[in-house]
Amino acid sequence: MTHSGDEAVWADAAPGARRLMHAALEAFAARGFHGASTREVAAAAGMSSTAMYAHYRTKADLLHAISLSGHQDVLAACERALDGPVGPAERMRALTREFTAWHARNHRLARVVQYELDALAVEHRASVVELRRRIEGLFRAEIRAGLDAGAFHCPDPDAAALAALSLGIDVSRWYHDGAERTPGELGTVYSGLVLTMLGAAG
Amino acid sequence: MTHSGDEAVWADAAPGARRLMHAALEAFAARGFHGASTREVAAAAGMSSTAMYAHYRTKADLLHAISLSGHQDVLAACERALDGPVGPAERMRALTREFTAWHARNHRLARVVQYELDALAVEHRASVVELRRRIEGLFRAEIRAGLDAGAFHCPDPDAAALAALSLGIDVSRWYHDGAERTPGELGTVYSGLVLTMLGAAG
Repeated sequence: MTHSGDEAVWADAAPGARRLMHAALEAFAARGFHGASTREVAAAAGMSSTAMYAHYRTKADLLHAISLSGHQDVLAACERALDGPVGPAERMRALTREFTAWHARNHRLARVVQYELDALAVEHRASVVELRRRIEGLFRAEIRAGLDAGAFHCPDPDAAALAALSLGIDVSRWYHDGAERTPGELGTVYSGLVLTMLGAAG
Repeated sequence: MTHSGDEAVWADAAPGARRLMHAALEAFAARGFHGASTREVAAAAGMSSTAMYAHYRTKADLLHAISLSGHQDVLAACERALDGPVGPAERMRALTREFTAWHARNHRLARVVQYELDALAVEHRASVVELRRRIEGLFRAEIRAGLDAGAFHCPDPDAAALAALSLGIDVSRWYHDGAERTPGELGTVYSGLVLTMLGAAG
């Protein structure tokens, strides 16, 4: 089984921590956070629970590490996508394309990132919520800029931002390696749909 | 905690079966199918495992019953929404509005229906896949009718159908009782966005 883009996100982590994150991701994506046991995650990483403890004290710490790095990675990808394009339509197109493609490319990671928010420990939530606020902020800012420039026309910008985010996020629910469209193709098609939805001229 | 529209779906089930479905829905929505135990579900329904056995033999049978009735209910709601409106734009608007509103109104049920497909036992999949095929078929047929009539203009009808379904489904991920918009309001706003996305005139 190929792991699509998930590998790349943790390239900088120490080998032991990376093995644990991969094992935890595999277990959480397959059986959910509550359905995966700490023992099973440690065993899949080829470690004892004691050896795991040196890296992460609990399963909740592992979920936090995965969720945090996933959110950081999609935020960084979106910021990179916006570093270049000029003009509201091309900036929004680049942002939506990359956000959608990221959720296809990293669909297993994205599933844990997007569907295990309620499983985060209370003390881990603020850091993740802050990253989500920044990601959503990129979408709202680009839509607002397009409306201000007269390039977009939509009666409810908040709903349009929500819908653009939803379209990208929901890709992680159904996307699988070997799907009919590549992540890039899906990103291109969906960004076209979002621009139409925003009433972008042309 | 109010249970939004979930109650209504099982109004016709026998009391014991209905209690078990509610308990299972609560457990699956909170901890995922793999994170919820059969014992816990039976206890929450006020039953012994033996008493539960008279209604459902396994946790997998309960998931199948919940998934099947949820899919049947959303299909029936979509069919009712299409029973009346005339003209491609108004039909597509009614379909998208109801599909979206259903996922908000029944958000806990919808979460189990949409995010626990992989957890269905192999022998339970065909019946659910067939219902999904029919729901998707409604969207494809309405989009095709609109294109044929020249009422819609979109370069990739398959992607547009996928996006319209995605927008409704993703509502169940984040919607909660007491959300800013009522299910009906969200349905109205999203159906407007989908019509714009389809290049509907006017």
